[in-house]
Amino acid sequence: MSRLIRELSGGSAKMLAIFSDAALVKHALAFEAALAEAQAAEGLLTTDEASRIAIACAQLPLDTETLAVEAAHAGTLAIPLVHHLRRSLGDDALAAKIHWGATSQDVADTALMLQAKAGAALIMRELARLQTALALLAERMASVPMAGRTLLQDALPITFGLKVVQWLTGIDDAAERFAREVDGGLMLQFGGAVGTRAGLSGKGAAIAAHMAKKLGLESPTLPWHARRGPVAGLASALAIATGAAGKIARDISLMMQNEIGEVFEPRVQGRGGSSAMAHKRNPTGCQIVLSVAARTPGLAATIIAGLPQEQERGLGGWQAEAPVLADLFIAAHGALAALAPMIEGLEVDTARMAANLKAANVGSDTGESEALVRAALQARS
Amino acid sequence: MSRLIRELSGGSAKMLAIFSDAALVKHALAFEAALAEAQAAEGLLTTDEASRIAIACAQLPLDTETLAVEAAHAGTLAIPLVHHLRRSLGDDALAAKIHWGATSQDVADTALMLQAKAGAALIMRELARLQTALALLAERMASVPMAGRTLLQDALPITFGLKVVQWLTGIDDAAERFAREVDGGLMLQFGGAVGTRAGLSGKGAAIAAHMAKKLGLESPTLPWHARRGPVAGLASALAIATGAAGKIARDISLMMQNEIGEVFEPRVQGRGGSSAMAHKRNPTGCQIVLSVAARTPGLAATIIAGLPQEQERGLGGWQAEAPVLADLFIAAHGALAALAPMIEGLEVDTARMAANLKAANVGSDTGESEALVRAALQARS
Amino acid sequence: MSRLIRELSGGSAKMLAIFSDAALVKHALAFEAALAEAQAAEGLLTTDEASRIAIACAQLPLDTETLAVEAAHAGTLAIPLVHHLRRSLGDDALAAKIHWGATSQDVADTALMLQAKAGAALIMRELARLQTALALLAERMASVPMAGRTLLQDALPITFGLKVVQWLTGIDDAAERFAREVDGGLMLQFGGAVGTRAGLSGKGAAIAAHMAKKLGLESPTLPWHARRGPVAGLASALAIATGAAGKIARDISLMMQNEIGEVFEPRVQGRGGSSAMAHKRNPTGCQIVLSVAARTPGLAATIIAGLPQEQERGLGGWQAEAPVLADLFIAAHGALAALAPMIEGLEVDTARMAANLKAANVGSDTGESEALVRAALQARS
Amino acid sequence: MSRLIRELSGGSAKMLAIFSDAALVKHALAFEAALAEAQAAEGLLTTDEASRIAIACAQLPLDTETLAVEAAHAGTLAIPLVHHLRRSLGDDALAAKIHWGATSQDVADTALMLQAKAGAALIMRELARLQTALALLAERMASVPMAGRTLLQDALPITFGLKVVQWLTGIDDAAERFAREVDGGLMLQFGGAVGTRAGLSGKGAAIAAHMAKKLGLESPTLPWHARRGPVAGLASALAIATGAAGKIARDISLMMQNEIGEVFEPRVQGRGGSSAMAHKRNPTGCQIVLSVAARTPGLAATIIAGLPQEQERGLGGWQAEAPVLADLFIAAHGALAALAPMIEGLEVDTARMAANLKAANVGSDTGESEALVRAALQARS
Repeated sequence: MSRLIRELSGGSAKMLAIFSDAALVKHALAFEAALAEAQAAEGLLTTDEASRIAIACAQLPLDTETLAVEAAHAGTLAIPLVHHLRRSLGDDALAAKIHWGATSQDVADTALMLQAKAGAALIMRELARLQTALALLAERMASVPMAGRTLLQDALPITFGLKVVQWLTGIDDAAERFAREVDGGLMLQFGGAVGTRAGLSGKGAAIAAHMAKKLGLESPTLPWHARRGPVAGLASALAIATGAAGKIARDISLMMQNEIGEVFEPRVQGRGGSSAMAHKRNPTGCQIVLSVAARTPGLAATIIAGLPQEQERGLGGWQAEAPVLADLFIAAHGALAALAPMIEGLEVDTARMAANLKAANVGSDTGESEALVRAALQARS
Repeated sequence: MSRLIRELSGGSAKMLAIFSDAALVKHALAFEAALAEAQAAEGLLTTDEASRIAIACAQLPLDTETLAVEAAHAGTLAIPLVHHLRRSLGDDALAAKIHWGATSQDVADTALMLQAKAGAALIMRELARLQTALALLAERMASVPMAGRTLLQDALPITFGLKVVQWLTGIDDAAERFAREVDGGLMLQFGGAVGTRAGLSGKGAAIAAHMAKKLGLESPTLPWHARRGPVAGLASALAIATGAAGKIARDISLMMQNEIGEVFEPRVQGRGGSSAMAHKRNPTGCQIVLSVAARTPGLAATIIAGLPQEQERGLGGWQAEAPVLADLFIAAHGALAALAPMIEGLEVDTARMAANLKAANVGSDTGESEALVRAALQARS
Repeated sequence: MSRLIRELSGGSAKMLAIFSDAALVKHALAFEAALAEAQAAEGLLTTDEASRIAIACAQLPLDTETLAVEAAHAGTLAIPLVHHLRRSLGDDALAAKIHWGATSQDVADTALMLQAKAGAALIMRELARLQTALALLAERMASVPMAGRTLLQDALPITFGLKVVQWLTGIDDAAERFAREVDGGLMLQFGGAVGTRAGLSGKGAAIAAHMAKKLGLESPTLPWHARRGPVAGLASALAIATGAAGKIARDISLMMQNEIGEVFEPRVQGRGGSSAMAHKRNPTGCQIVLSVAARTPGLAATIIAGLPQEQERGLGGWQAEAPVLADLFIAAHGALAALAPMIEGLEVDTARMAANLKAANVGSDTGESEALVRAALQARS
Repeated sequence: MSRLIRELSGGSAKMLAIFSDAALVKHALAFEAALAEAQAAEGLLTTDEASRIAIACAQLPLDTETLAVEAAHAGTLAIPLVHHLRRSLGDDALAAKIHWGATSQDVADTALMLQAKAGAALIMRELARLQTALALLAERMASVPMAGRTLLQDALPITFGLKVVQWLTGIDDAAERFAREVDGGLMLQFGGAVGTRAGLSGKGAAIAAHMAKKLGLESPTLPWHARRGPVAGLASALAIATGAAGKIARDISLMMQNEIGEVFEPRVQGRGGSSAMAHKRNPTGCQIVLSVAARTPGLAATIIAGLPQEQERGLGGWQAEAPVLADLFIAAHGALAALAPMIEGLEVDTARMAANLKAANVGSDTGESEALVRAALQARS
């Protein structure tokens, strides 16, 4: 897929790197190395064997273009990867011990979780940045009167701070839900062919625990090859977070309409221009956020729809998740990364707000609005 | 919408009643009565006024067919309802105090939350019933060998108990997520025209707290007219729960195939027949669960997609939620209510399982599988 | 499901009647009567037998509430319905000939298609009404200058007629797509248990042709129990039509903003009011259209996602279609029925348009815009 | 986005190339060259000017990585691209005439349509190949008896040819719908800032016609910046086509179950293996098709949901389409390219079919089934 299209549609370079071929293969190799290390710890391999496998994983020269073709042909990344790894050892006996007790999906799911973990850290950072910016803005705007609008009509006075603290509360809620899904939802996958951890002399659970610790993932009691609720929870939380961001972008873009003119995205050199109209100041940041928020609900639905997977490891369902979850992380981060600086640098025309409110002729008392802003900021501190 | 279609597609009579016209109007009137009571508690109304309003709410004769037409015309239920309520009082001064400080969306959202609360209780009960049944079945089947199957192919041995404890863990996860979304997510809506609780002599927060207590809902610091994350969280959790149920139905229906014949839905007089083939034993319960699980992801996506709502109260977005959330509750409950008795009465042909496993010729050791079942059951006790 | 919720969310009474229990049962009975008549025409029944069956179908007393419960229990409407029909005859020999060669899904699918046919006629009428209204408005507004707006910013001048003729072209496109899907897509289902039309002495095709003619449906060469592309095509076309309507509602609601004030939904007594703010003139029609347009994409996706159905007749997939297709028809008609009178009675403030254009300071030449309106209107005449 | 993930999830190299950065930029430059050529034909530029612009377009050295960053910053590809193009000319007067009368979205939409055109040709080719293979297989299997199965239960006899001709009819229907959407739906976008083709001395329509001819696209009377029905129609048709493919994969994977064993994907060296179980023969082709069919409905819904775009050119809606439509083309082609060779090389175990049918004990007459196969094949010839 075109990188141009990805970036134009809100993909951040950092998140694209997390979901790159190189990162995926690195995680897959980390899985195999951690497996060998864990097996050594449990006495199934010698320390020397594990260390030679780890070195092979670290040094394997790989052409991801070729690997992509091979993986697509085999139907799974692990088959060609393990093949190359084994050949690189030049020791058939040791080669046979690579990937011991594991199945392709163990590698794929664990790699996806490691990508999700890295992705989640970026998302959390951006959410926190946004929360800080919104809290500051709400505080600053607590008493600034403007027209409240409902059903796209002027209604009664509010303060701009109330609108902002509502945005903030939406992000708080989304961040909490995302944190809850991340906490405990990023799990090692290690179950072997049918999720029994068979063939490991009863050391399966101990090996899993060791691997999970090494890789920084949760170690679930049971493998989860065909039990994808936590993935669906994560996907939903990402979609809801982009929705909360989309709500802010929707409001800013409406307030930026020329006839309203109450707030403006910060001026950024070379951004927001038009190839046809030099006078325009386009809400380019809002455009990114809104275009992302349009795409994420369908992606979340796709993962939820895949839950009724067949038997011990399904056909087609889990294989559909990786590109969709990647898209969700890339899109969500793009939206948040576009939004945070907009809030930090938002230009607010309080005079225009006052003028619009006066023109609306709907009164001017904003005491309750101010009180609500104070109460809401206090409640979260 | 046809009741036949609703029931055939998994709607339970109990949940249909919760989302009936009668229940909706009852909740809307309860909102108005609670508002008056709260205003009396805060000294804005006399006790006598509040009590006369409460009586009017209790006694209002209503034809929901007519009310539906009036509400559709007005664009909101509250307008005709408050109109009828006011007229029924025969006291213009008191009539003017009904709905004081409230807006139509306050009534609509609160009524929806009261429906959601009643619906959530039914869902929780059915989830608990299912968990109990699954735990018992997993225990009973912990050591029963069968072929594990992956990518729809025979793979290696498992025990049936492992499959069941995986189902159970999926339901556990879904139940926890649903409980988290319900906990704190079922909120009173009371904000007035633009969500400021203006016009109530600064008593807005106290009135809201009083109302919430009376109605059994959470009392959020801020109204949430245009901040719908919790609704989206609830919708996602319902869709994920039906997905977890769908996974079980998928497996049962595959195991019920004649050539496999390992489990069967319990025989129920008059169910599972065919209008064309007397010999058939159809997986009718699975059919309901799977048809529901096919519909819920799109419904959840619709609510997530509506998050970027406009300004203080949006246009079209929140109005789209009520029918969709109702469908989600009705569908989810229908699926769970179909599934629980299936698990309770599941017929298991352990001999056929053994025969299929032998025919698969993939070994017979199930020690690790049994150990996993024990560990998983222990971990949740 | 609550009728209130249905109507409030855009359900028209006419379309609700088409998808009512009574209509569904009527169509199911018409199927059985047509089947008997066709079998008489092909010599499988005597004319007298067919006529007694037809009379039984016409006279069967039915309580749809009870039937709903029975159907939900059996998993299909046909089982209890045929049972009641047979009992009503009081002639076991003839009773056995009812439903001869048919399966439950034949009845369900044919009834759905008959509902779709009635629904499609309503949709077409409303689309035609809308096209007429838009063409007249485009003609009238061909030369009325206003600010063209892009990315929610003032851009360059257009005429209001150009905006309207764009709306019209969107509806033209949607109407053509819908007509194409309807044409040939509304098919009799008659295949028997596995879609072979077995057990009818080789007269299956002739019987199907006769039935289709009688019921006013297409007669496909093959039954389509597990081949649902045309249903998905219909669903998509309905969703796209509501999207085209949604585009118009989006624009009108933006133009109705107080600060812009260029057009207004027609004043309708008792509509567009606010329960909290007497001064407001809410875009209630737009609200209905936009709330519908928010719900239809997820519904269409649900039907598309159901296409990979199992074997000769699937499990869960087609059973999920009926409520979803019903929702699509009900919602789409509600949106179109709300939109058409809005266009017919749209209040246009051409002075405000001129003033806004002047204030935007982006020039005033609208020659090309006028020419495009003329060209587009000419091209469709 | 990782190429590995793309390929593993069904992306074909050919379609990935069509939606690559290089192809996108090539199309964008072709737009600018065609515009200059058309303006020369209409006398707005000299032939020499047009030819110098065309040469600049052909020779512009571009680093797509850098361009991606610039485009994401500007919010649109055209801004940096036109900037580089102008600078490369070294002639300010001529530079100013590049992109004359066009807007960024004209370039983006036209490039997307050129990608769609190339993509549609690949899809059509694969659909035709599949149709040929299915017709041959249906012919060959017309009289081969097997058990028909409904609701995942043995039902009555059919012939395998009937199943195949049903698959074929599903693909025929999908191919017709796709062809209809392609025919007339792949349109030049040329409207300028607000879709009026202003600033071109009244030559806008003629220039558009010339450009469309040059680029091989339709020339619509009106620009379609905010009228996206045809894009939604195309998206739906792609999703329905993958659904029709998914139905075939669903059936094959069910028939490949060990206990049924009636058909098998062709043996392909290095495909279908398991990293854990050497004995397995996985339905890897089915896996690709089913995983694609799981993703496309949500993508189509996203594009349909975007229809209610704002005013003359919307904010966020159309910007969301490019990555989604690209995903749809890539996924659909991947599914079809995986499926066609499966049908061409499908291994059929007619003895096992006969044995299963006998074991089902549901009769053996398949006369009507054979007749239907013949009739259906005849009807399409």
